[in-house]
Amino acid sequence: MSSTVFAPAQFRLSQRFRGVRSRTLAICKPLTPEDMMVQSCPEASPAKWHLAHTAWFFESFILRDFLPGYRLFNEDFPWLFNSYYRSFTEFPEKRLRASFSRPGLDDILRYRSYVDEGIERLLEVNPDPEALRRIELGANHEEQHQELLLTDILHAFYTNPLRPIYRPFDSNQDMRSASAEPLRFIHFNGGLVDVGFSGSGFCYDNELPRHRVWLEPYALADRLITNREYAEFIADGGYRKSELWLSAGWDAIEQNGWRSPLYWNAEGESWTLYTLRGETSLEEAADSPVSHISYFEADAFARWAGKRLPTEFEWEAAAETQPVSGNLLDAEFLTPAPTSAASNSGDQLRQLWGDCWEWTSSAYLGYPGFAPLEGSLGEYNGKFMSGQMVLRGGSCVTPQPHIRSSYRNFFQPETRWQFSGIRLADKVTPLTGGASK
Amino acid sequence: MSSTVFAPAQFRLSQRFRGVRSRTLAICKPLTPEDMMVQSCPEASPAKWHLAHTAWFFESFILRDFLPGYRLFNEDFPWLFNSYYRSFTEFPEKRLRASFSRPGLDDILRYRSYVDEGIERLLEVNPDPEALRRIELGANHEEQHQELLLTDILHAFYTNPLRPIYRPFDSNQDMRSASAEPLRFIHFNGGLVDVGFSGSGFCYDNELPRHRVWLEPYALADRLITNREYAEFIADGGYRKSELWLSAGWDAIEQNGWRSPLYWNAEGESWTLYTLRGETSLEEAADSPVSHISYFEADAFARWAGKRLPTEFEWEAAAETQPVSGNLLDAEFLTPAPTSAASNSGDQLRQLWGDCWEWTSSAYLGYPGFAPLEGSLGEYNGKFMSGQMVLRGGSCVTPQPHIRSSYRNFFQPETRWQFSGIRLADKVTPLTGGASK
Amino acid sequence: MSSTVFAPAQFRLSQRFRGVRSRTLAICKPLTPEDMMVQSCPEASPAKWHLAHTAWFFESFILRDFLPGYRLFNEDFPWLFNSYYRSFTEFPEKRLRASFSRPGLDDILRYRSYVDEGIERLLEVNPDPEALRRIELGANHEEQHQELLLTDILHAFYTNPLRPIYRPFDSNQDMRSASAEPLRFIHFNGGLVDVGFSGSGFCYDNELPRHRVWLEPYALADRLITNREYAEFIADGGYRKSELWLSAGWDAIEQNGWRSPLYWNAEGESWTLYTLRGETSLEEAADSPVSHISYFEADAFARWAGKRLPTEFEWEAAAETQPVSGNLLDAEFLTPAPTSAASNSGDQLRQLWGDCWEWTSSAYLGYPGFAPLEGSLGEYNGKFMSGQMVLRGGSCVTPQPHIRSSYRNFFQPETRWQFSGIRLADKVTPLTGGASK
Amino acid sequence: MSSTVFAPAQFRLSQRFRGVRSRTLAICKPLTPEDMMVQSCPEASPAKWHLAHTAWFFESFILRDFLPGYRLFNEDFPWLFNSYYRSFTEFPEKRLRASFSRPGLDDILRYRSYVDEGIERLLEVNPDPEALRRIELGANHEEQHQELLLTDILHAFYTNPLRPIYRPFDSNQDMRSASAEPLRFIHFNGGLVDVGFSGSGFCYDNELPRHRVWLEPYALADRLITNREYAEFIADGGYRKSELWLSAGWDAIEQNGWRSPLYWNAEGESWTLYTLRGETSLEEAADSPVSHISYFEADAFARWAGKRLPTEFEWEAAAETQPVSGNLLDAEFLTPAPTSAASNSGDQLRQLWGDCWEWTSSAYLGYPGFAPLEGSLGEYNGKFMSGQMVLRGGSCVTPQPHIRSSYRNFFQPETRWQFSGIRLADKVTPLTGGASK
Repeated sequence: MSSTVFAPAQFRLSQRFRGVRSRTLAICKPLTPEDMMVQSCPEASPAKWHLAHTAWFFESFILRDFLPGYRLFNEDFPWLFNSYYRSFTEFPEKRLRASFSRPGLDDILRYRSYVDEGIERLLEVNPDPEALRRIELGANHEEQHQELLLTDILHAFYTNPLRPIYRPFDSNQDMRSASAEPLRFIHFNGGLVDVGFSGSGFCYDNELPRHRVWLEPYALADRLITNREYAEFIADGGYRKSELWLSAGWDAIEQNGWRSPLYWNAEGESWTLYTLRGETSLEEAADSPVSHISYFEADAFARWAGKRLPTEFEWEAAAETQPVSGNLLDAEFLTPAPTSAASNSGDQLRQLWGDCWEWTSSAYLGYPGFAPLEGSLGEYNGKFMSGQMVLRGGSCVTPQPHIRSSYRNFFQPETRWQFSGIRLADKVTPLTGGASK
Repeated sequence: MSSTVFAPAQFRLSQRFRGVRSRTLAICKPLTPEDMMVQSCPEASPAKWHLAHTAWFFESFILRDFLPGYRLFNEDFPWLFNSYYRSFTEFPEKRLRASFSRPGLDDILRYRSYVDEGIERLLEVNPDPEALRRIELGANHEEQHQELLLTDILHAFYTNPLRPIYRPFDSNQDMRSASAEPLRFIHFNGGLVDVGFSGSGFCYDNELPRHRVWLEPYALADRLITNREYAEFIADGGYRKSELWLSAGWDAIEQNGWRSPLYWNAEGESWTLYTLRGETSLEEAADSPVSHISYFEADAFARWAGKRLPTEFEWEAAAETQPVSGNLLDAEFLTPAPTSAASNSGDQLRQLWGDCWEWTSSAYLGYPGFAPLEGSLGEYNGKFMSGQMVLRGGSCVTPQPHIRSSYRNFFQPETRWQFSGIRLADKVTPLTGGASK
Repeated sequence: MSSTVFAPAQFRLSQRFRGVRSRTLAICKPLTPEDMMVQSCPEASPAKWHLAHTAWFFESFILRDFLPGYRLFNEDFPWLFNSYYRSFTEFPEKRLRASFSRPGLDDILRYRSYVDEGIERLLEVNPDPEALRRIELGANHEEQHQELLLTDILHAFYTNPLRPIYRPFDSNQDMRSASAEPLRFIHFNGGLVDVGFSGSGFCYDNELPRHRVWLEPYALADRLITNREYAEFIADGGYRKSELWLSAGWDAIEQNGWRSPLYWNAEGESWTLYTLRGETSLEEAADSPVSHISYFEADAFARWAGKRLPTEFEWEAAAETQPVSGNLLDAEFLTPAPTSAASNSGDQLRQLWGDCWEWTSSAYLGYPGFAPLEGSLGEYNGKFMSGQMVLRGGSCVTPQPHIRSSYRNFFQPETRWQFSGIRLADKVTPLTGGASK
Repeated sequence: MSSTVFAPAQFRLSQRFRGVRSRTLAICKPLTPEDMMVQSCPEASPAKWHLAHTAWFFESFILRDFLPGYRLFNEDFPWLFNSYYRSFTEFPEKRLRASFSRPGLDDILRYRSYVDEGIERLLEVNPDPEALRRIELGANHEEQHQELLLTDILHAFYTNPLRPIYRPFDSNQDMRSASAEPLRFIHFNGGLVDVGFSGSGFCYDNELPRHRVWLEPYALADRLITNREYAEFIADGGYRKSELWLSAGWDAIEQNGWRSPLYWNAEGESWTLYTLRGETSLEEAADSPVSHISYFEADAFARWAGKRLPTEFEWEAAAETQPVSGNLLDAEFLTPAPTSAASNSGDQLRQLWGDCWEWTSSAYLGYPGFAPLEGSLGEYNGKFMSGQMVLRGGSCVTPQPHIRSSYRNFFQPETRWQFSGIRLADKVTPLTGGASK
């Protein structure tokens, strides 16, 4: 593409940029232009919009500011594909995204190429460090939208009465495993610990500043709650026992008629589960982590089990030393998977990364001294610090480079279209057999 | 296609069937597969759904019942593309139609061809007269959806912030005309008249039985109200004077914030109008009939003008002897047009056919002795006889063969996405200069 | 009160005025000041508001205009107790009426006395004929509110979980009767008939002008549909058979979960009915007319029965010669009553007056040449001529002087809190045993 | 009432019980029975309901369980006046409380006396310590409802278009003061501090367990933000600058059209404020704390001012050693008051207690190891730990015995009908002139 000799940092960033950008297209491979028009719930966006908006981000916050002589691809795109940056431009109501039949997919793909070329050119010209930082931010932004692309497609295909399959399992693949072993609780001493990002690479503003918190001793379950365990909660009348539920949670299940996770369908006495790999039976998926539940359901399950959800800092302190590896997007399994027998030796937290985002009992708020980014980018995270709960650990559709122990995802407690599940926490009781760490 | 010698009736019906079916595809020519996914308001449907549903009608009510050995194109389509026939099958909620990315457009086009072949085959085998009647009904059904296709696309493109143009005017075309002449009122004697369908061809069940009604003498305006005249109503504070409005109309304009017809946009001191031919200025369209107004607005305008809307029977009695000719879909003007100077001679009602559906002051109810069709087809018209008002005369997107003097269109009084306009009525006053007919 | 010698017309009007005013107070006798605060649904108003608003009407449209030197009782009342006359003053949102704890009931009663004195004084001074007309209008207005007072209290007490009783039956009273005799249909010839008010007394603007309509021959049921008959409709799955329902009716019963008339409660296998006389069993009330049903339910019942609802003009033509007498407010039975055996002789329409308002299949629209009253009073009736259906005949809470054959009541088709029931109509079939009239 | 010699604890509790119960009645003194029926927003309840529900609490959780032979006052009251304890009984929807005209006020007052006698009797019989604990809980419960009574009446009277006055100022009283002095920030060292209740008296379950938290050094404003300061925020376009607002806050002000605190009304160029003492001008109330704002407004104001809101623990650590004294209900000022000049000496936090509840930036969540009360009383606080923010310090309508440094009030962030205001926090900057504590 260019014979310029890059500085190593730029070279790495260029590699990363290309990798992220091409993965987005790979995710869309199984989709038709018509599929990419569907917006099946207010939280979701059409796939085509995700393609455009992620290009928009690079154009709006990087090329316009840092590439000399950059000309907009299209004068309308800056406001058309703005998601929510009020200080940048006006933008269309979110629900209108389903009407963007024009620009067509071809135009959007040309827009992406145009922006790709711009970024490559910028990387060649030895840019300002702020530009490099923003390219890294743009790559992370696009990784978030990769996850959203897949969660939105899952919802779109589920909404289609024909229930198309995004990607069927190969003939040798399925979800079955040896039965999950009994839940064990691993102990942690707590104390005065540091939380928040501390490394040298990229992090979001909401992971900073690193700061001290005091933790009482605590215990975390060694794996996620399975579909089988969740089905027991349902069978025990979990959805009918008001004493298990937060008041707002009870209202939510009553108003929405929820009696199971999203994507579960009653089939006579049993359940089927709809996934990106098609429909499966509860039986087949029994040992896989339960997913697509709201915070309210996670909280009620924990109360039913006599446990609780962890705080985000209990989770982070326990995860900080664990290598990032698991059923993430890179594994291309695309649905939560049972723990493997192999991983079961020792007193390790398993399924820490990937499978499902883990609801914590922490509200999403700014850390002491939190300062949003400058300018419009300050709207990225900070303005959502109200009414949402923190989730940790990534899911089966989170890109591996995107996740880390200090990473804070956040959604309203009634959110179910994300891959969200349950890890239980408990107080430390000397009689429990778990090892202390 | 076949060497069978058709009976003349079958031959004519086959010609008609082919003509209708090919016009539907012609209407969709300017649309991309993505355009055909958009459902921009609850009343509208995606274009692809219209294509499928009109094939479904022929399959469900004709091929399944009358073509020996007919096999369904797809086992899911009977319920998937059912619109509202409860006694036929369950059907998806209307709002879900926007999620039907699959079947893709290609599948739908194949479905249409498959159904076309079935109907052609049926016509060759000398079918039951009921089959012929239903094919004619299916053709009329499809003509209604041709109109809906265009009204829905207009809304879909208007909702797209980029406002694409369905079909631009040729360089020699536009909307301008010699200024409309002053409104004249034509007198009619009324008396005991017969209304309802009386011919030998096709009509809907809601046009029957033909029956007597008593009409007092009345007068009808010789043309539709123009955009210029409607702009005067606005400029005179029409939308702010509660005394001009029905109570439900006042609530509607307050709740929806209506201050002009749908598709008008304030542009400084003036207005622009969005049409299937693109955006135009009020100035250019001043002499064209005002369109896309609710019954409430038509009624308020009439009160402001010191007149009233006609009843459906006043309209019908006046139109019964008038040849069907005007700015209908066949003219391909696709937007209301000014009256031509040529048409202005004599005391004729002009713009009776086409341009805009004319709101009448009649509620949509069954005629004395009304009997819906047998079976599921009985749901076609009768179950909507509540809360709607009758419109007469067709619009610029109504196929010419589809309209007649006894034809009753009906919509809720708050409907604005159809081409709906105003013809005034008045009492007969001997001093007025209009001629009596 | 005054020794002035009234002209006979004024004397009669004064008598009428006093009678109406005192009946309003009598209706409120069983209510506490707290009861008179309740507004239990958006359609209803607190009893105290009715007391105030009916005084307001006399003050606003009569005393201010016709009584020389009249001083307002309270400067705020003109807008505070305005219901919906936009051209008169601004007015509070209807839902706020439940917050009018001040003025207290005592103040309102003083307001009523003050207004009473004003009207009496006005009547003594030989007023303008327009003043007399308006006093009569005010009396009729108050009679309408007497009916509303009772329907609103019924709803208010039903909403109270304790279900208080407005007025219990005396020990010798109940609802039982000899079983209703089989429904018979009385024939009418129709033809060119005159409808609309024709007498010399009071009528509303919406009963005018008297005009001709053409009626085909028709038949009307000789009595109203009973609770027993309606229970058969329910037991036969009437609420689950979509083919019986108008589309908007089906939506209404689905959205509201209606499975019986308002005020019916399932009690094991049977039903109880809540009334102004307390709770009763379906068994006890089996022969009483079914009440508190929507137009949609009346229409579906008629379709289930293979009949239809009458038009308002069929009803009026049949009722015009019948003396006004029946289970009206003056009978103080306060709930629909079975037909008495005595009334059963001959081919008379029974229960024509009182018991329940009878839903007709006619939309509420203006008559040909309809002209609303001048000024603000023009808002009384005309602005509601949209989206409502006509009911005829009065109910068990309609004052006897208030009702006549040309009287048009009107409500939205989903209305159920009024005493509204069913009289069936049919086509004339020579074989039916009913007598022709 | 009884000559039994109480143990001192019982004696004190009896005194406290009587004091609380009689204050509730005193609060209702200025209200008519009609006033006590009004429920003017979904959050509020009628005053009569508060009277009944607070008696219900003592009956349901104390008399039924601990007074031998206790007979219910009325068999319906246990469910009728249950607020939200699902595990106790079913209960009426909250919005129905406005329909409880029966039982009448007299019945409710008798109910209260009956319960009072029961409690007095119970206290005489040397009851179980749990009974004593619950009587104290019941007294605290009633104190919360005393505050609600006043906030609900303020809203009810404001909703009444006549705007009655709950209690006018005496002629020598008003809100004016010497102008508030410039805001100063007091420094605190933070560190590892203990929070949560630690005394020997009563506290709620949500104040426990006492636990350690780590606080960075911080500063708190020495007084609350005044109406004048808030008016500057408005005048500076605070409500139009999206960058000042949380995303959910921006949505809230857009949807509700908020452009000022609740109870402010634009009066030409200035504002009037409606209070329990009647309407006042912004000028007169300029130095009083701003009140009746949502969390979103408090947060936006803080951002506009370049500061932030304190966490609940920063507040608690600073308040723990401060004596509880201020403009609380006992002062009977009933509206926020300016700081007095007298209180201004030294580096004290002023207005810490009373005036307005102070929004903190802390979400309302359970403390580590939080355990709700046993049984139905466990529903008192715990089930609301979702979607709400913590407020601290009490208001001008909070009873003095009710408040303490560990007390946690909580409301949804959009709540405005409570007396809620702003204390700013800041980071510690060595150059600021405030003293460190």
